[in-house]
Amino acid sequence: MDRIICIGAGNVACHLASALHESGYEISQVFSRTEPSARSLAGQVGGSHTTDPAAIDPTADVYLYAVTDSVLPELAARIVAPDALHLHTSGSTGMDVFARRARHYGVLYPLQTFSKSKPVCLPETNFFIEGNDDFARGKVRELASALSHHVQELDSTGRRRLHLAAVFACNFTNHLYEIAAELLAEAGIDFSVMLPLIDETTAKIRTLSPYKAQTGPAVRNDRNIIDKHLALLAAKRELATIYRLLTDDIHTIHHKGQNP
Amino acid sequence: MDRIICIGAGNVACHLASALHESGYEISQVFSRTEPSARSLAGQVGGSHTTDPAAIDPTADVYLYAVTDSVLPELAARIVAPDALHLHTSGSTGMDVFARRARHYGVLYPLQTFSKSKPVCLPETNFFIEGNDDFARGKVRELASALSHHVQELDSTGRRRLHLAAVFACNFTNHLYEIAAELLAEAGIDFSVMLPLIDETTAKIRTLSPYKAQTGPAVRNDRNIIDKHLALLAAKRELATIYRLLTDDIHTIHHKGQNP
Repeated sequence: MDRIICIGAGNVACHLASALHESGYEISQVFSRTEPSARSLAGQVGGSHTTDPAAIDPTADVYLYAVTDSVLPELAARIVAPDALHLHTSGSTGMDVFARRARHYGVLYPLQTFSKSKPVCLPETNFFIEGNDDFARGKVRELASALSHHVQELDSTGRRRLHLAAVFACNFTNHLYEIAAELLAEAGIDFSVMLPLIDETTAKIRTLSPYKAQTGPAVRNDRNIIDKHLALLAAKRELATIYRLLTDDIHTIHHKGQNP
Repeated sequence: MDRIICIGAGNVACHLASALHESGYEISQVFSRTEPSARSLAGQVGGSHTTDPAAIDPTADVYLYAVTDSVLPELAARIVAPDALHLHTSGSTGMDVFARRARHYGVLYPLQTFSKSKPVCLPETNFFIEGNDDFARGKVRELASALSHHVQELDSTGRRRLHLAAVFACNFTNHLYEIAAELLAEAGIDFSVMLPLIDETTAKIRTLSPYKAQTGPAVRNDRNIIDKHLALLAAKRELATIYRLLTDDIHTIHHKGQNP
């Protein structure tokens, strides 16, 4: 089986490298600038580790870059292994970040939120893959299929839009939970009371579109309540502005015929 | 058992009146300005119906107002039954809307999102109750306990904050799903690919605080991706502004020591 080097030891790197290791792949080396992270992940997957890009083994079959997008181009340029397969896991960086350096390259993008301390069900995670040639496409499909039952091809343009949608549906949604938790803490109410409501909100979009599932003061255009809520948020960072913009956007979509 | 009149025939009214009827309560009359809604709910619960506030039976034991907040004060003033118990279901209207008209009054507030076409698990829904005297508190607890296993007292001030938190965690979250669906549709991607990610986002906040669960370009402060995303949103209503404000607020909380 292929010998893989994992570039990065953050949340995504840890979940993917561990799962590939458990599927029988050899993770021979882990690179990270952060020594404890590199050592910890290397220990988990039975490989060596380094914090020096110059010490990355150039003889592996696959280089899997699971790093912040901002450092990806620089790392891709430093790792010289022109005949190996180079893959990144980013939603918003094009496959062509590897184009000048490698013959075979592609993308293995898991549509998921990874925190180190929380196990994730990878087999149910949607993976979106891309490859520059038949070899890359075949190999990235093989790796993705070792991780998940849900693998499909998507080009870099589509993946960028998918990632943007995921920022709204996951990161921003989680931030709204953060804001709710903050407001509840001020009222001495435990955040856990919100969980059945959150569950129902996500359950509804299985059987209704989000458009049809919408409820609350914004879609009812209940100005009386909206004004009370804005007053409660007045002194809190930009929360009143966020409330007003989301309320106005709901109103625009539902009452001004801009139904998407 | 008490004879209840249901004021309103919208989403909340339908779910609560049906469940009270199934628990053995008599819903003797349904009032709504919208005749088909009044007739339909009355048919379900075996009562009469009217669209005329002057024709509301003044001899019932309980008047349950499940109407938009903006019409609640006017209806509360028109229904003259000073010895009955008057209850509303609103998150953001104080109990004292009934103070001048009735001896016994209170609030039966379900922390839930109700759409007519989607059944809801009321027994797992958190109900927050309030009453102006022992009689009202006892009776509203009895009614709430017939609907749910999770009933607790909360005053009007706390309930208003709870409702505001729920707008963020439910209505605004659902709107972010709406925006994600819109962005995916433009890329020809089915919204259902987002469901495992949405599930994991809500699963994480069972074991991590929303603060610790946060991931994505905003919390990593990945300006490169953030700028790409803003460019993709440029021509879409106020979506770029919403993206920027939520990103900035995540950054403020996570990187400027304003950890709530």
